[in-house]
Amino acid sequence: MILEQIHDPQDLKKLTNEELHTLVDEAREALLQKVSRHGGHNGPNLGVAEMTVALHYVFDSPKDKIIFDVSHQSYFHKMLTGRAQAFIDPAHYDDVSGYTNSKESEHDLFTVGHTSTSLALASGVAKARDLKGEDDNVVAIIGDGSLSGGLAYEGLNNIIELGTNTIVIVNDNDQSIAENHGGLYRNLRELRASNGQVENNFFKALGFEYHYLDNGNDLDALIALFQQVKDTDHPVLLHIHTIKGKGFKFAEENREKFHAGGPFSLETGEYLSAGNKKDTYNSVTTEYLMKKMAADPTIVAVNAGTPMVLFNQEQRAKVGKQFVDVGIAEQQAATMLAGLAKNGVKPVWAVTSTFMQRSFDQISHDLALNDLPGTILVYGASVHGMNDESHIGIFDIPFMSHIPNVVYLAPTNKEEYLAMLDWSLEQTDHPVAIRVPVGALKETGVADTTDYSQLYKNQVTKVGSKVALVGVGNFYSLAEEIAKELDAKYEIQATIINPKFISGLDTDLLDHLTDDHQLVVTLEDGIVDGGYGQTIASYLGNTDVRVQNYGLEKAFHDRYNAAELLQENGVTVENITEQIVKALKGKHVLSANESTR
Amino acid sequence: MILEQIHDPQDLKKLTNEELHTLVDEAREALLQKVSRHGGHNGPNLGVAEMTVALHYVFDSPKDKIIFDVSHQSYFHKMLTGRAQAFIDPAHYDDVSGYTNSKESEHDLFTVGHTSTSLALASGVAKARDLKGEDDNVVAIIGDGSLSGGLAYEGLNNIIELGTNTIVIVNDNDQSIAENHGGLYRNLRELRASNGQVENNFFKALGFEYHYLDNGNDLDALIALFQQVKDTDHPVLLHIHTIKGKGFKFAEENREKFHAGGPFSLETGEYLSAGNKKDTYNSVTTEYLMKKMAADPTIVAVNAGTPMVLFNQEQRAKVGKQFVDVGIAEQQAATMLAGLAKNGVKPVWAVTSTFMQRSFDQISHDLALNDLPGTILVYGASVHGMNDESHIGIFDIPFMSHIPNVVYLAPTNKEEYLAMLDWSLEQTDHPVAIRVPVGALKETGVADTTDYSQLYKNQVTKVGSKVALVGVGNFYSLAEEIAKELDAKYEIQATIINPKFISGLDTDLLDHLTDDHQLVVTLEDGIVDGGYGQTIASYLGNTDVRVQNYGLEKAFHDRYNAAELLQENGVTVENITEQIVKALKGKHVLSANESTR
Repeated sequence: MILEQIHDPQDLKKLTNEELHTLVDEAREALLQKVSRHGGHNGPNLGVAEMTVALHYVFDSPKDKIIFDVSHQSYFHKMLTGRAQAFIDPAHYDDVSGYTNSKESEHDLFTVGHTSTSLALASGVAKARDLKGEDDNVVAIIGDGSLSGGLAYEGLNNIIELGTNTIVIVNDNDQSIAENHGGLYRNLRELRASNGQVENNFFKALGFEYHYLDNGNDLDALIALFQQVKDTDHPVLLHIHTIKGKGFKFAEENREKFHAGGPFSLETGEYLSAGNKKDTYNSVTTEYLMKKMAADPTIVAVNAGTPMVLFNQEQRAKVGKQFVDVGIAEQQAATMLAGLAKNGVKPVWAVTSTFMQRSFDQISHDLALNDLPGTILVYGASVHGMNDESHIGIFDIPFMSHIPNVVYLAPTNKEEYLAMLDWSLEQTDHPVAIRVPVGALKETGVADTTDYSQLYKNQVTKVGSKVALVGVGNFYSLAEEIAKELDAKYEIQATIINPKFISGLDTDLLDHLTDDHQLVVTLEDGIVDGGYGQTIASYLGNTDVRVQNYGLEKAFHDRYNAAELLQENGVTVENITEQIVKALKGKHVLSANESTR
Repeated sequence: MILEQIHDPQDLKKLTNEELHTLVDEAREALLQKVSRHGGHNGPNLGVAEMTVALHYVFDSPKDKIIFDVSHQSYFHKMLTGRAQAFIDPAHYDDVSGYTNSKESEHDLFTVGHTSTSLALASGVAKARDLKGEDDNVVAIIGDGSLSGGLAYEGLNNIIELGTNTIVIVNDNDQSIAENHGGLYRNLRELRASNGQVENNFFKALGFEYHYLDNGNDLDALIALFQQVKDTDHPVLLHIHTIKGKGFKFAEENREKFHAGGPFSLETGEYLSAGNKKDTYNSVTTEYLMKKMAADPTIVAVNAGTPMVLFNQEQRAKVGKQFVDVGIAEQQAATMLAGLAKNGVKPVWAVTSTFMQRSFDQISHDLALNDLPGTILVYGASVHGMNDESHIGIFDIPFMSHIPNVVYLAPTNKEEYLAMLDWSLEQTDHPVAIRVPVGALKETGVADTTDYSQLYKNQVTKVGSKVALVGVGNFYSLAEEIAKELDAKYEIQATIINPKFISGLDTDLLDHLTDDHQLVVTLEDGIVDGGYGQTIASYLGNTDVRVQNYGLEKAFHDRYNAAELLQENGVTVENITEQIVKALKGKHVLSANESTR
């Protein structure tokens, strides 16, 4: 097997053309074996087998700098840069991350996972090279989908401004995560249809030397093209048309299904987990919105490049004009929400926590400053969300809850969640964000009739004394468990609070608590710093009530086991119970006897 | 005076062509009188007198929706929509804000002040119109400079995707705040040079019906063009070439100087405050960097469209290739910083607090996740910074200090600031942001020799007991004043702490404080929620030490008087002293006698 002999890109240079072709086949087969058993980004990688081999054959990484956008298409790159074992040997599948990672290899310049960053990164790398008087090539590979993000456009502009060697490869497989949306994609279509010859050319208009390659899965053509532009003294853009999912017919036939996913059958092209038909927070959201939208033509769902979070292809066809996919362009989504709300319709934007942060200024300056009633559904905001350091969703409370006017809600079960969503869509006072619960669907079976227009009113679900447990959203159940433990082990009847709102405090309740509580414990599913609990610690700071804030340490936690991470951060029933008892002893509320029974 | 008779855009429709021309002259004269006495955005407005009159003559605001990008060029729009008095009568100059403001008029759809948002806003407004089945025109006016921001590109893409009536007016005066940078600007130049006929056309490539007007200060031509495209059923882009500063020769001759500024002489074109030659935090930054960059060719200063914050035109010529202006594109700046740092040079980015928030994800995901040593100088982060609600800089601590790996520093004087900056440029471990002090330059005359690589080590500047005052950055002097008052009035010797670091705690120090302090008071120049003080309240929450956090309420404070706003928020020497004494009495540390002398 040739692939096993490739320990460094330099090893490629010694191969014959025939061996290079064999290498492509081996690599693609290894990839198919791995992703079908292990899951991962299947389609995007299958399409770039030839391109990646050609890149490493022609350029000299790490002297030449190769930068992948998002980098979910870097699996072949990893195989060719000393990490083939992680794709050949199942025991080593988890040795590598799903993205480039600078801690993994000197061939991975950056740890990335968000979209549209490669060109700006490349412009910085190229500028540094120029300042140092060096002469390596800077190569950025960006998919057509990633070109929908404004940062990609800013990068294109700045690469031209620098005017020196930067080779931009547009890997155009005519597909984003789902289908593409936006004016640019008409131009890409025209360019593909005309073999790059059509008069209107977005890239040429920005000043690029432009080359089109229609068969982007032709290894020899790719090598020739790369050799032609290597060591250029000015910016060059290679528009390369590839087949997403190339070499696996089910992936070629359904590009949305095979963007990424868990293990699947190589024979049938079916995902192995497809049989799971249980309701989830995602499915009840979809169900609710489909019904609501059918009844109210002024409700419009917005999404930025991940429509399947809300609607599958069939459902999108059904909701029609009441759904907008803006491309992978979270800034546009947030600001468009402001425009929609201002002109009297009811927009709801579904976005993953880690990507929502791409629109901080738009949420603040456009939506919140204008205090417009857009609804934001925040997915995956939990230690139990995506766990790659580039995708973790635990920073949203510090990020979102301190923006003035934004009402940020943290439901704890299905009924509460849907009641909040319904209230949010119908109210006209404020932007509202809802932290969609993460984990198995919890149903109470009882409709939630809370009046959410009474902002910042918390719910006391159990009245106790001495200690109050504030369980935010996903961590409400943790509060219940701790209360049980306190009762069982120490006969302490803790107060339990479901705050519901995390962008402001129920100061009446907190003032009352000081009467007969010595300790308030906050539990939140995110980092502690800048979080909800700290606003309580601050509010009660000038009283004799002690406050303990639990959550995660501020860090880019990477590919962690959630249970272990929580334990490391002291977020366990056992530890918190112990800390509570210790504190109450310190306050002389519990005698030594009581606290050690 | 015709201008005085315009109370509503409908009044324009009754004017003869000759009267319209007279109105343009009157409006421009009124504007010149006002901005020369009052200050404001002079050049951008002078260029759009004709365009604004034509807009309101042809379109029917507020039925037709007119959206200004940044909206610093909306002065004529305000004159024509019932607010002429604010431009004619000096006593009413402050009746209107410097930007569109939805609280001011139904003709101002949005309160805005940041760049590149108009097209995304327009896309939302247009989509809502379509959903409601209405037929008004949606018109967005965006300057050439604003097209450098990625959100503008996302907006263009989405307007085409919608495919219905949206009229985008590119007001091209061949100037951003300073000169333009980026590939797009070559295309705009070619388009201007060819009367819109050159083959490569950025806007046509994206799918727009494109019209070029070379004399964008020709009222009749503007009216004809607007009439031609009014009620279009598809997106149209009007590329209109105007003269920035039109009608005031000094402004036409120096477009950077006359972007905005304080009062100036109509006779000489000199700003009246130009005589002020005192050193400022800006000037010492410039001086330091010019010297440092001359000695070290690997230092590179980055800026996003506001180069004058660092260097004037002459200084930019001097630093040459060691300065990069990326356009009004903060995302690009932050991500480019990551690329520069990764490839071994020393980048420093100067950015205003309010605009820094446009790059949250880039600072987090590109710079911080990769833990790269870029330096960010954060300007105007203070209650004493810009005070329009769209430009306030008081949200940076919650925003910045909870991003993992970022070291956020708050210097209190010149020597400390420059020592931090020098350390930051030379270290290679982390991204570092420095909150550039706001206000008059404070000099100690003694070089700061602190070793800042000892992260999170606070400086205790006065050892006392009972109460510790933590004065963050600009508010350090407030801590000193309160300490004086406590001594003078109550003979309390407070401990004074200069934390220096605001992204992490000096836990050793805080642990020690608990020995002989009953109260820790934090003072920060920003909002309290999510701020530095709350991290201390949280850390000390489980002790008997009380904590009081002072700062501003979370809100979009607008055109406030800083002293009044601080007073409203209890941030005065008097109030804080009183609250401290009250708390110490509550802790029985002070007897009733002591505390009332």
